[in-house]
Amino acid sequence: MRIDIITCQPGLIEGFFSQSIVKNAQTNGHAAIYIHDLRKYGQGNYKQIDDYQYGGGAGMVLMVEPLANCIRDLQKETVYDEIIYMTPDGVTLNQKTVNSLSLRKNIMIICGHYKGIDERIREMFVTMEISIGDYVLSGGELAAAVFTDALVRLIPGVLNDETSALTDSFQDNLLAPPVYSRPASFEGHEVPPVLLSGNEKNINDWRLEKSIERTRIRRPDLLDF
Amino acid sequence: MRIDIITCQPGLIEGFFSQSIVKNAQTNGHAAIYIHDLRKYGQGNYKQIDDYQYGGGAGMVLMVEPLANCIRDLQKETVYDEIIYMTPDGVTLNQKTVNSLSLRKNIMIICGHYKGIDERIREMFVTMEISIGDYVLSGGELAAAVFTDALVRLIPGVLNDETSALTDSFQDNLLAPPVYSRPASFEGHEVPPVLLSGNEKNINDWRLEKSIERTRIRRPDLLDF
Repeated sequence: MRIDIITCQPGLIEGFFSQSIVKNAQTNGHAAIYIHDLRKYGQGNYKQIDDYQYGGGAGMVLMVEPLANCIRDLQKETVYDEIIYMTPDGVTLNQKTVNSLSLRKNIMIICGHYKGIDERIREMFVTMEISIGDYVLSGGELAAAVFTDALVRLIPGVLNDETSALTDSFQDNLLAPPVYSRPASFEGHEVPPVLLSGNEKNINDWRLEKSIERTRIRRPDLLDF
Repeated sequence: MRIDIITCQPGLIEGFFSQSIVKNAQTNGHAAIYIHDLRKYGQGNYKQIDDYQYGGGAGMVLMVEPLANCIRDLQKETVYDEIIYMTPDGVTLNQKTVNSLSLRKNIMIICGHYKGIDERIREMFVTMEISIGDYVLSGGELAAAVFTDALVRLIPGVLNDETSALTDSFQDNLLAPPVYSRPASFEGHEVPPVLLSGNEKNINDWRLEKSIERTRIRRPDLLDF
């Protein structure tokens, strides 16, 4: 999978991509991620990329021309399956969408910043708008990192043990069961004896029961399908 | 506001906190954010912080003792309003929760990693569990960064223009209207004439209409309240 990310502040996420499982995925050839600095396409001596919004009001807008030039430059070399704009106005991301998009080959991600991007970029180029949740961030960079992390960890071979991703929360519409590690007793708080029993069937039954119980209490909406 | 973040991989988010508006917020004295390396509390010569889970299965678990020691060390100096664990099992974050938590003084955030943290930490210390969305990430670090960014930008004085945060998506249960910047015409795509009219009332009416229209089409659930 190839992911191209356009941002006006590459420094916000470069650290993440140079250290996480996303880094391992790149080292091992499972994914190629390129961060593109929109400033390179800025206009005039000051490399301007944002401006006041028409009609007045607080907050700057990322201008249409630098973004259009950057997108077209990338399109010269790659045919994108999706050009995704990270925005609170988009479709709310969930694991099902992540699963489905993890099968794509080439994805471009545009990070908004300040008050957003010129609407014409959305009309002319964007094929999909994604929100990571119902809250507002100072830019799309963290959203792009969240989305990329969720995607990349699903590529076969990226996680050390593939079954690890399959037993995550949401993959089966259930939250994960509680997990415990050593010591078995900590200040009077004990690990449930069944987990120490060595009886695989009982352990699996207990985990499923706890998953269902936790989901019913915390997220009953996940069980309505 | 003071935010203490406990993580086993500080490098994943240090770059973000040293550059974003979160950095500005710290420079200007609006927020103090400290990232604590869990490894410092690791056990034995190898500074072990994670171990296999009881009962078997893929994925490592962050052990109870290093986390408990780190949390208690921090509690010696600060009384926390909330000790928050970032987990997909938690309450889904939304702008209302962000608004309400932005009024707290001291918040501790625990980032899970791998398969999660020992359940006893959740029982013994955690006061609130937050999920940033219905998808799984490789760790809680990005979730903590998302949550911190959403919080910090609401502190008065952090954004250059305070009205900017008030007109964001979700603050009024409406998505934001489209925004445009120069040029007025781009390859045949025009800025809506009303935005160039200079008539403030018409501009406000148009923006509200577009907000409602976009919300009705994309997120009718936001209008049910």
